[in-house]
Amino acid sequence: MPDHLGEFDLIARYFRRPASSALLGIGDDCALLQAQAGMQWAVSTDMLVEGRHFFAGADPRQLGHKALAVNLSDLAAMGAQPHAFLLALALPAADPRWLGEFSAGLLGLADAHGIELVGGDTTRGPLNLCLTVLGLVPDGLALRRDAARAGDELWVSGTPGDARLALGHLRGEWQLAPPALEQVLPRLHAPQPRVALGLALRGIAHAAIDVSDGLLGDLGHVLQASGAGARVDADAVPAGAALAQQPLQRRRSCQLAGGDDYELLFTAPAQRRDAVLRAAAQAGVGVARIGDIVAGRGVLLHDAAGRELAPDYASFDHFADR
Amino acid sequence: MPDHLGEFDLIARYFRRPASSALLGIGDDCALLQAQAGMQWAVSTDMLVEGRHFFAGADPRQLGHKALAVNLSDLAAMGAQPHAFLLALALPAADPRWLGEFSAGLLGLADAHGIELVGGDTTRGPLNLCLTVLGLVPDGLALRRDAARAGDELWVSGTPGDARLALGHLRGEWQLAPPALEQVLPRLHAPQPRVALGLALRGIAHAAIDVSDGLLGDLGHVLQASGAGARVDADAVPAGAALAQQPLQRRRSCQLAGGDDYELLFTAPAQRRDAVLRAAAQAGVGVARIGDIVAGRGVLLHDAAGRELAPDYASFDHFADR
Repeated sequence: MPDHLGEFDLIARYFRRPASSALLGIGDDCALLQAQAGMQWAVSTDMLVEGRHFFAGADPRQLGHKALAVNLSDLAAMGAQPHAFLLALALPAADPRWLGEFSAGLLGLADAHGIELVGGDTTRGPLNLCLTVLGLVPDGLALRRDAARAGDELWVSGTPGDARLALGHLRGEWQLAPPALEQVLPRLHAPQPRVALGLALRGIAHAAIDVSDGLLGDLGHVLQASGAGARVDADAVPAGAALAQQPLQRRRSCQLAGGDDYELLFTAPAQRRDAVLRAAAQAGVGVARIGDIVAGRGVLLHDAAGRELAPDYASFDHFADR
Repeated sequence: MPDHLGEFDLIARYFRRPASSALLGIGDDCALLQAQAGMQWAVSTDMLVEGRHFFAGADPRQLGHKALAVNLSDLAAMGAQPHAFLLALALPAADPRWLGEFSAGLLGLADAHGIELVGGDTTRGPLNLCLTVLGLVPDGLALRRDAARAGDELWVSGTPGDARLALGHLRGEWQLAPPALEQVLPRLHAPQPRVALGLALRGIAHAAIDVSDGLLGDLGHVLQASGAGARVDADAVPAGAALAQQPLQRRRSCQLAGGDDYELLFTAPAQRRDAVLRAAAQAGVGVARIGDIVAGRGVLLHDAAGRELAPDYASFDHFADR
């Protein structure tokens, strides 16, 4: 195998497959997608940089999975059905083994969600992955950040904080025993976007966001967009098996400020509680009620006994001084 | 002014404007775009890396312009009307001056073409710009690479090779006199995407591509997709004032193998020659007939006297060994 592949060979060999739902896929100046009456397109782009979003030397198959997963998570948070995506890739070199593994991880998750790679760009440069996803949602049913209303209940899926617990171990902030590490590592390296839950919540939930920057930080985006406040019971946030065994302060930090789990945080009217639980069961994902949306501003964080906690769990900001 | 801005402040300060044509713009997990019956979406993504697509320390206003221009050029080559775009940006630091200039260049060209920034992502990392553009084209009218037919005439817009002439000066491959440099530098740094020409050619041209990798190389993509060959008269390719004064071999190299001009290369039936010329006049762009599409494979390159030339003008490949 050659050490270096031409750009066009590279796309053809590792990423090109016949267009199915797209009218025209990889290989022209643009892909062509058919518009559908009564539907809206949900579009999002995410960039992953080596050393910031993933470690240098990261497993390429996991990286392919994760790069698409974090983008699918944005569609999930809108209640959109994944449809097509584009991949722009800067690589230090065209390494066939790396490309084969990366595309296997990427296209494996794509197939699992019925989303098609329709275009892209490859260039030489410091490793950088930029994906753009397109999904479809019926007119008026998108789960928007600005739709939370006082009186809504606040919900979260899964067990937030697992990915942050794994990251802390890899960074040397703490040491996990092998069974605990084994439980949380896949949550960091191969997150499962909550697409089915987002779809099932259409017409039930008001606002939704995916937890990428930390639960409280992402809640803050919803509250700011909606002009509302929230009361959050820190002890109501479900903990995974490994996280439940951690010291209280570490557990809370991981749950409330850890990103990268890509769980859904959403609000729904109290009278739709049963519908929420049915939607979650249908999607095969656990959900927990962790608080309420209230009039006013800001977050009142408390524990199960009702004692107020300082909500000083900074979320992840790529440009903050830290 | 702070040296470092938070990610969310950064988007809000430099890039956020109220959504107009989009249902929902920057600030949610996804942007929302309304589907339109009878229209297709043309979607493309391009990644620009420092040191490869532009020099380190490049003027940020020109860079903002160029990053969008090369993406608009992909829409032009499909005959699509620009509609919306997303910007993902990796930056070594959040420098307010750089960001202000970059966004002015970017949004200035966006306004000129009526295309709206609807979403994006910012992160810290080696400078990398990834844009995704979305345009609209009526069903069946897209200018595809695979639509060239034997008997079509081959056309190119503008004066290809100017950008490559400027690049050679900056790289020290040759020295240009100040007036010549002044003529070709804007062609490299601030290319004008041929959007109006692409729109005017709908229903007239068969195949189209934008010349980003070199005229002969990009022609090769059209011929491969269409299963056809071409005869090209090298002397029929128009030369700009500076290029016309260069030695013959350098002129031909720049014209036939130089990328980065973002002119349109397209084919149209011979009987539509007048319609092509009217479309070009309407778009305010010069076009020249430089050859013919023929049955068979490959390119026969010749000069004005009919003498065959070796078509050894390699186009730009980001992963080839050079």
